[in-house]
Order: sequence, then structure tokens, then C-alpha cells
Amino acid sequence: MEARYSIVFCFLMLLALSSASAFPNKKQYKPCKHLVLYFHDIIYNGKNAGNATSAIVAAPDGANLTVLAGQFHFGNVVVFNDRITLDNNLHSKPVGRAQGLYIYDTKNTFTSWLGFTFVLNSTDHQGTINFSGADPILVKSRDISIVGGTGDFFMHRGIATIMTDAFEGEVYFRLRVDIKFYECW
Amino acid sequence: MEARYSIVFCFLMLLALSSASAFPNKKQYKPCKHLVLYFHDIIYNGKNAGNATSAIVAAPDGANLTVLAGQFHFGNVVVFNDRITLDNNLHSKPVGRAQGLYIYDTKNTFTSWLGFTFVLNSTDHQGTINFSGADPILVKSRDISIVGGTGDFFMHRGIATIMTDAFEGEVYFRLRVDIKFYECW
Amino acid sequence: MEARYSIVFCFLMLLALSSASAFPNKKQYKPCKHLVLYFHDIIYNGKNAGNATSAIVAAPDGANLTVLAGQFHFGNVVVFNDRITLDNNLHSKPVGRAQGLYIYDTKNTFTSWLGFTFVLNSTDHQGTINFSGADPILVKSRDISIVGGTGDFFMHRGIATIMTDAFEGEVYFRLRVDIKFYECW
Repeated sequence: MEARYSIVFCFLMLLALSSASAFPNKKQYKPCKHLVLYFHDIIYNGKNAGNATSAIVAAPDGANLTVLAGQFHFGNVVVFNDRITLDNNLHSKPVGRAQGLYIYDTKNTFTSWLGFTFVLNSTDHQGTINFSGADPILVKSRDISIVGGTGDFFMHRGIATIMTDAFEGEVYFRLRVDIKFYECW
Repeated sequence: MEARYSIVFCFLMLLALSSASAFPNKKQYKPCKHLVLYFHDIIYNGKNAGNATSAIVAAPDGANLTVLAGQFHFGNVVVFNDRITLDNNLHSKPVGRAQGLYIYDTKNTFTSWLGFTFVLNSTDHQGTINFSGADPILVKSRDISIVGGTGDFFMHRGIATIMTDAFEGEVYFRLRVDIKFYECW
Repeated sequence: MEARYSIVFCFLMLLALSSASAFPNKKQYKPCKHLVLYFHDIIYNGKNAGNATSAIVAAPDGANLTVLAGQFHFGNVVVFNDRITLDNNLHSKPVGRAQGLYIYDTKNTFTSWLGFTFVLNSTDHQGTINFSGADPILVKSRDISIVGGTGDFFMHRGIATIMTDAFEGEVYFRLRVDIKFYECW
């Protein structure tokens, strides 16, 4: 009887986990390596030069570089170099930097396109992880591709599941990145 | 006699197929999954805000954001969010969106560099496909890399062969994308 | 006695090779294909239109498109189409073009993020190689990912080790790219 409940429970858990994601890993492969990291984006707004870790560098016609554009920021290109931490605290000891760009790419909702690298440099991890993919920001959990890695992540590939862990005004957001490698070397 | 002709015919067909492409798949591997899709790019020119699906967001010194730059648009960066359809009709029911950027990168001919994602959301396909590569626009058929995927395309890799299916003035173009996965999961 | 010296020598060589790199390939896998190429970047500064092979197309607030921005060029986006040669001579016969973008992404040191393609078109190599990764410019040797290829490099993956081979003022630099494929088809 107990065993039966556990099986039902496991099934429901799996269902819950998969339905939370935009396009889940249907076959439920197990990662060969797994990491959860957070990164913190503080966007430059003309007044926070000391703290800002990212900056708008391109904007659509008529917009400027200190205020995200109208129409759900469509056409803004942001360059970032964000602190990576092991927990959700901006002031925790950084274990690396998230470097690259994101682009707002929809006029009637919040979505972005991401091309960036995690440069990890801690006692636990030395190496880089390269990401690429679409980010439908308002979906609770969304998947992007891990297209390669170097150092400890030499030739690795996988999937990163991103969740918005905090969003404060239009200056700060924090992403939780669940890094699942399915090809390890 | 017949067999001989067939062999010659096959050989000629292969030759024709391969010579049409910039850098063909010489070993003729067979894809494990195959899709043909079209996407439609309508670039913002200052007057078509209602229809436009892409916008110039960066330009070289001296150029603006509503007219593609001189010198074969060298230095223009375009953010796009284009309709994807199963056939070449802009008004067919979309099966997803092509999101990302393209960059014009040559001063004396038309070439671009592409970084984008197909976000597919139809009864047939749920998932994303991530692309990266150089696009020598004037070559009839050119290959870019599929660097990863999610959902139905979990961890897939492959090659996409792109053909310009329509080109109307400097406002609309349509690309036929022949998606060939050689690593399926 | 001799054999012993050779072993020690090999060990020291390996040590030297690996310590030179930011995040080395610890397991010392052997590439299935290996290429060394150079590419040459001449950035447009408002006066060298004839020679320039790259251009600043986006800049942070307050900067312009003919002078790299202050704060270690943070926020500059550069589109390039650079000559590729077999040796370190800018005037050697090109074997292809390096096309794509780089982004300066740190405020207090020189680092960049790279997304680009080698389009090779010589008697030896016909095909493209797609790269993505972080480039900590001041580190002697740094690794980025080869995320895919076409033509002769159909479906290849690997690691590229980049070294700055020359740096002349803020107009010219030359990178040595050691291309090591670990997945060949």
C-alpha cells in the first residue's frame, strides 16, 4: 500500500516538475553533472555607475541608453558582467562572472535572447560554460542550451533551466540557473 | 545498361545537390530528424510599425536606425522576432517565432552573421532550436550550425541549410530553413 | 638514464603548456583534427575607412562610434570581417574570413565576449567553424568553445585556444587561434 502511494507521489512530482517548464525534458534523462548558480544583473540607469553591472548599448529608433525602451524594451541590447553566487544573496562571495549580452526581442510581451558565458573561478570550479537560447521571461521556468565549456567543463553540453528569482523595478533582477550537463568528458 | 545509367544519374544528382551549397555535407550522412520551415522578416523603416517584426538597433558611424546603412549594410545589427510558417505564405498559421539577431558584416557584398532561436509551439512541435553561423546571403544555399535544442529537440545538434525564398525591396525577406538533425536524443 | 630525463622533460613541458592557459584541458585529450590560424582586426577610427575590417556599432551612453569607450571599452560592440592567414603576416594570402562580433564586457579590465565564424575557402579547407566564448584578453592563453561546423568541419566540436599575437595601439590586433577538434565526423 505504502509503495503504491510513493509511486503515485513520484509520478505527481514528476508531472509537477515538468509542467512548470516551458518545454520540458520529456525523456527524463539524468544529468552527468549538476550545478545551481545565481546571477545578479544591475542595469545602468544614468545614476548608478558605481553599482551597475550591465548597460544598454543599443536601442531602437527614438530610444536612449539609460531608460529601457517602450514596447516591452523591444530592440534593447544589453551588455553584462554580472556577479555569480551560490545562493540568492547579492552580497555572498562571488564564484565567477556571467558575461555576454541579452536582447529584448518582442514588442507585446517580455522575451529576450541570450548569448553569454559563465566564467567560474572558485575552489570548486575552474572553467567556462557557454549558453545560448531564447528566454520567455514571464514563463516560470525556461530552458536554454549549454553549447560548450572549457576547463572543468571541457567539451560539456547540456541544458540550463532559468527561473527569475527576483525582479526589482527595472534596475535589478536575479536569475536562478539550474545547470544540467548531459554530455560530460 | 539501365543500371549504368541510374548510377550516372545518381552521381550527377549528388553533384548537382552538393554544388548548389556553399560547403556541402560531403559524407552524405542521413539526418535522424528533418524539418523544413520558413520565416518572414519585415524590417522597421520608420513607417511600418504595425507590421514590422524586426528593427535596426545598431549602425556604423554616420548611419541611422530606419535605413539600412550604405556599404552593403556593413555594421547594422538587427533584432528580430519573425513568424515561422510551414509553407512560404506569410499569412499561414504561424507554428512559432524566430528570435535573435543578425549582423551585416561585409563592406563589399551581402553577408551576415546569425545568432537566433526557433521557438516552436504547435501541435507537432514543442521546443526550441538554437542556431549560429555565417550567412553568405548571395550564395543560393548556405549552411549554419544547430548548436542545441530544448523540449522536443532536447540536446539535438545538426545543420540548417538556408535559402532566400523571397526578397522584396529592403523591407521583407523570407528564408527557407532546411533543418537536419544528426544528433537526436 | 636518458629515458628518465625524457620523462621529466615531457612532464615539465605538459606542466608549462597547461599552466599557460586560463582553464586548461586537464585530462589531455588528443584532438582528432588540429589547425592553427591567425586573424587580423583593423578597427575603424574615423580615418582608416580603406583598411578597416571592423567597426564599433554600439557604445555605452555618452560614447561614440569612432573611439573605443573609456572604462576599458565596456559596452562597445564591434562587428568584424577579418582576414584569416596561415602565418602571422597581415599581407599573406588570406585563407578565409573571421566574421561576427565581439563585445567589451568589463569596466575595470580588458575582457570581451565573442560570437563569430571562420569562413574558410582555400585549397586545404572548405567550410565554416562556429565559435562562442569569453575572452579574458590579458590572460596569455584562453579557451573558447567551437560549437559547430559545416563543410569540411561538418558537425565538429572542440576548443579554440586564443593568444594575442600582436597589439598595436587601439587600431590593430592579431590573434593566434589554435583550433582543436575533439569531435570529428
